[in-house]
Amino acid sequence: MLSIAVIGAGRIGHVHAKTIAAHPQARLALVCDPFGDAAEKLAADYGARSCKDAEEVFADPEIDAVIVGSPTPLHIPHLLAAAKAGKAVLCEKPIALDMKDVEAAQAELDAVKVPVMFGFNRRFDPSFAAARAAVEAGKIGDIEQLTIISRDPAAPPAEYIKVSGGIFRDMTIHDFDTARFFLGEIEEVYAAGQNLDPALKDTGDFDAAVVTLKATSGAVATIINNRHCSSGYDQRLEASGREGALFAENIRATTVRLSNGEVTDAQEPYLDFFLERYADAYRIELSAFIEAVEAGTTPPTGIGDAIAALHLAEAATESAHSGQPVRLN
Amino acid sequence: MLSIAVIGAGRIGHVHAKTIAAHPQARLALVCDPFGDAAEKLAADYGARSCKDAEEVFADPEIDAVIVGSPTPLHIPHLLAAAKAGKAVLCEKPIALDMKDVEAAQAELDAVKVPVMFGFNRRFDPSFAAARAAVEAGKIGDIEQLTIISRDPAAPPAEYIKVSGGIFRDMTIHDFDTARFFLGEIEEVYAAGQNLDPALKDTGDFDAAVVTLKATSGAVATIINNRHCSSGYDQRLEASGREGALFAENIRATTVRLSNGEVTDAQEPYLDFFLERYADAYRIELSAFIEAVEAGTTPPTGIGDAIAALHLAEAATESAHSGQPVRLN
Amino acid sequence: MLSIAVIGAGRIGHVHAKTIAAHPQARLALVCDPFGDAAEKLAADYGARSCKDAEEVFADPEIDAVIVGSPTPLHIPHLLAAAKAGKAVLCEKPIALDMKDVEAAQAELDAVKVPVMFGFNRRFDPSFAAARAAVEAGKIGDIEQLTIISRDPAAPPAEYIKVSGGIFRDMTIHDFDTARFFLGEIEEVYAAGQNLDPALKDTGDFDAAVVTLKATSGAVATIINNRHCSSGYDQRLEASGREGALFAENIRATTVRLSNGEVTDAQEPYLDFFLERYADAYRIELSAFIEAVEAGTTPPTGIGDAIAALHLAEAATESAHSGQPVRLN
Amino acid sequence: MLSIAVIGAGRIGHVHAKTIAAHPQARLALVCDPFGDAAEKLAADYGARSCKDAEEVFADPEIDAVIVGSPTPLHIPHLLAAAKAGKAVLCEKPIALDMKDVEAAQAELDAVKVPVMFGFNRRFDPSFAAARAAVEAGKIGDIEQLTIISRDPAAPPAEYIKVSGGIFRDMTIHDFDTARFFLGEIEEVYAAGQNLDPALKDTGDFDAAVVTLKATSGAVATIINNRHCSSGYDQRLEASGREGALFAENIRATTVRLSNGEVTDAQEPYLDFFLERYADAYRIELSAFIEAVEAGTTPPTGIGDAIAALHLAEAATESAHSGQPVRLN
Repeated sequence: MLSIAVIGAGRIGHVHAKTIAAHPQARLALVCDPFGDAAEKLAADYGARSCKDAEEVFADPEIDAVIVGSPTPLHIPHLLAAAKAGKAVLCEKPIALDMKDVEAAQAELDAVKVPVMFGFNRRFDPSFAAARAAVEAGKIGDIEQLTIISRDPAAPPAEYIKVSGGIFRDMTIHDFDTARFFLGEIEEVYAAGQNLDPALKDTGDFDAAVVTLKATSGAVATIINNRHCSSGYDQRLEASGREGALFAENIRATTVRLSNGEVTDAQEPYLDFFLERYADAYRIELSAFIEAVEAGTTPPTGIGDAIAALHLAEAATESAHSGQPVRLN
Repeated sequence: MLSIAVIGAGRIGHVHAKTIAAHPQARLALVCDPFGDAAEKLAADYGARSCKDAEEVFADPEIDAVIVGSPTPLHIPHLLAAAKAGKAVLCEKPIALDMKDVEAAQAELDAVKVPVMFGFNRRFDPSFAAARAAVEAGKIGDIEQLTIISRDPAAPPAEYIKVSGGIFRDMTIHDFDTARFFLGEIEEVYAAGQNLDPALKDTGDFDAAVVTLKATSGAVATIINNRHCSSGYDQRLEASGREGALFAENIRATTVRLSNGEVTDAQEPYLDFFLERYADAYRIELSAFIEAVEAGTTPPTGIGDAIAALHLAEAATESAHSGQPVRLN
Repeated sequence: MLSIAVIGAGRIGHVHAKTIAAHPQARLALVCDPFGDAAEKLAADYGARSCKDAEEVFADPEIDAVIVGSPTPLHIPHLLAAAKAGKAVLCEKPIALDMKDVEAAQAELDAVKVPVMFGFNRRFDPSFAAARAAVEAGKIGDIEQLTIISRDPAAPPAEYIKVSGGIFRDMTIHDFDTARFFLGEIEEVYAAGQNLDPALKDTGDFDAAVVTLKATSGAVATIINNRHCSSGYDQRLEASGREGALFAENIRATTVRLSNGEVTDAQEPYLDFFLERYADAYRIELSAFIEAVEAGTTPPTGIGDAIAALHLAEAATESAHSGQPVRLN
Repeated sequence: MLSIAVIGAGRIGHVHAKTIAAHPQARLALVCDPFGDAAEKLAADYGARSCKDAEEVFADPEIDAVIVGSPTPLHIPHLLAAAKAGKAVLCEKPIALDMKDVEAAQAELDAVKVPVMFGFNRRFDPSFAAARAAVEAGKIGDIEQLTIISRDPAAPPAEYIKVSGGIFRDMTIHDFDTARFFLGEIEEVYAAGQNLDPALKDTGDFDAAVVTLKATSGAVATIINNRHCSSGYDQRLEASGREGALFAENIRATTVRLSNGEVTDAQEPYLDFFLERYADAYRIELSAFIEAVEAGTTPPTGIGDAIAALHLAEAATESAHSGQPVRLN
């Protein structure tokens, strides 16, 4: 039974708190959030303690592990402090918005001996994971072309977008990790940014994008992103290999189909957002984290993965603004 | 190149005329219909001759084969006359409405040496035929339960229903043949007739029915019929065997699916009726007929099949009226 | 927070214990099983107490509600004792194997003032419930034909079958309830029993069956059961109405499809059995029970439903043995 | 009834000959091919005349229209000669391999008064056409992202590839036209070429590619091509708009699905190649051509479409070789 503290009582903090509470091998011990009574409320829902100062978390001898769900600029400080205090850490993505911050922390991060894992939850989605396992099992031969479709049901507020680091660091970062999960190293990035929603134009960010990744293996991946999708949270993947292809499809709450004089086999919209769509993934991610902590093994998504995804996000940002492809080294 | 005459210039006559005209090994030579100028019009569409008297068909030395698409009471007279004139015959279902008529003609029918085939077109539907072939190939082991769903998009006029011989002889007859196609001999029939459409109540016929067939093999088949289906012409089949199951699904004109905020993967209605749904089946049926005629082999659907299906229709009619199962001998 | 005791530490007891443990408003307080240390083991998994004598459950003042998951012959005794002790009761299906036992207990049952609910879990399956809600919302007009397909992945041991009360009371009982859930009252039953598995012949029971139900509404339902299904736990439903149709489909663990040179869109087998397939249904069923207990309202599946389903099972048993349809009064 | 001559008795010539023969308003009058007895054989299959010299076609007063299915370098000469002889022309894609050839012919082409249509058959595919019609009808709002997946079942011989003009002119040309069909004008092209099959490396051509097109509208299209696809001829399309999305899927010969202990809903491979997959499209394309000829209207795919697609192919070729995006003017 792992005693876990959650830092950040926002949307992602709620996801983790709920997931921990329902997990047979984890206990939600502490929720920390500096603003208002968010931590207190969330903690109360699950019979946990709460605090406003993250230092209390790091100093608490009862805490075995910390989930860092604070705003992105605090990820590295919280991650380092928790790790130095000997806590295992599960840190949300992206690790930071600027590679310089990561580089500055690199030495300290390398010295960390506690298990540190990064929240690339989609690797733990049962369908994506099963597709990856089928690839590993040789079901489709070498992957030649990978297509990742990832659209949010609706854009976040403009204020969020302005501080998000941009669509590639905030949203595509998951898809970059998925591409690496299937294809390994990427050597060139080309991104076509789009401004489709007039209401978001002022943010200075793209609200949709199509990214082409050339992998070292010779495979090419396409990532299609949109901050808006009228049918719901559109999360799909196609891996096309020399000897076959694998498809991971969208999920709906039920299997019901309706037919009548105007339509046949009509289904309900996709599960609306990541809380529902990736509920299983968060649970399995937590299990993987607990297993690594308890067994003393290396967690499946390490800092190398966090850095690689951030590199891709930076390259895509540069490409979308310059209009030219960017090579990674 | 087979010279073919079509008797009957109604709906089914049009289907056959069109199919013959497009067939590389067949030629539409003559269309016969006693009423008005129906034959003339249909013949003109395909550059064929026309006549009003069926005797002219039987006497015509140019005619190799006759397709009997006249009203059901004329099936046996036309079939016998054509066969006695040495013409190969493709006769529409049902052979007759009353088994007594068939029995009276039995001796004459047995003496017929020309190829005689009956229009159980669904055996030639690519999907049903592929399912049957997969069963024969042992893909699902012995069939244990068969489900046939067969619903028309809309009921025919009440006047048609009154002279149709009833739903089981007119509509289910196809499904009885399909059941025999998959399961072989049937030994008991139970039919639950339904009167769902008030407008058809006066016909004295059922407008929907669920039929249970016990096969000699131990398998049980269910046929679900309805004269009305709001989604279109609903034609499906499930064969469930000891080691697997096969499904043949409905067909639409395109593969297009629509998703939006209210619906996902919505498709268009099923192909509306038998002309469209079974266009391929009529073509392949004609090929099978031509092949049997030219090779001098026994056609795939003989008079034994026509009689067996009619027996089942009579048993189902009796069962639906009496409420009791009926054993066949 | 409802303190719940589970009587019976067998397969269904494990389902309920797990469901209670994960439910935010319920607490597993006590597990009771007279045999060996089954109760002790199950209780230990969830930090609950255990006992061997059901009397201890009824006498325990801490227990608010009892889930009766004991062998069927003990359902009525345990249900009555718990209810008389003032405990709310959630009783597994079937209520009993013999209607006489139910009738004998009827008066006592009627006098019960505590909430008593019966475990027809499929009413709470999200897909079946959504289909039913769509019917209620008028999406398909009046239901004309209902098809329920319900096949188990593999038959239970012959010893279980011998004491199960027969396929209709043990397995079809769920489908009878589903038919009533969609169609209301049933007035006639015809059942075609099948003996497909030689290994089960000696049990004296059928191992597959096709049941036809005539509803008072004029609708006809078909239930297709099989103790064996090679593709997994086959649980589907089609409701065909005057203005449309609804389909509830099978569920798989992932959405992954595989295509290669031999196959396209191949998916994995269906979820293997009821623990997985109806996990959500058990959870929602428990919520409905808790809600009824806490609000003092009538639970959604009352003793009337349990009796009606048992009546249908008795009629189907009689029909399958006699070969004749059976009318209910 | 239009009398049509086909120039070129190769694979595409066979497609057109068969389509004409089966078309109620067209007559295959003449087949022309300079090599061996190819023309004679093909003509004989449909009772047409044959010749070896294209001049005979242009001089033949009986010929109303010419379908140019000769090798690509002869497209412009044949097209011009036929048009100058007053024949309506349906010319296969691509119009030429080099834009200079088109420019040289431009003035002559502009002076042509007869109907000239180009064989972008996919615009006439029922599913692609229905998707386009749904877009026009406003079903999904403005298109934001378009994905075209187009993979051949197997690469042509290396000798063919060497003279094909490269993958973009030979294969992607269809997809470029489809992109324009949905999105209108394109202003920038980025192509990632791939060399996946060692056997084709020596051709100097790519055997797979992922192309990004920026449309003037702000939409981005992705084209995913591969000369090889183990599952068959993979032809799909997704149009994602502000208010919905449309999907056109692959087609199989039957609707049969197989389920067993290892797989569920397994379907057969996709229709193997363009003759089968686009049989309907060729038929509808021919109808559109005949209709334009007979009504004296402008054919739906004119020389402007042929030129625009070739421009995109040239830009993609340049981009794939240089690694840089190419702007069109």
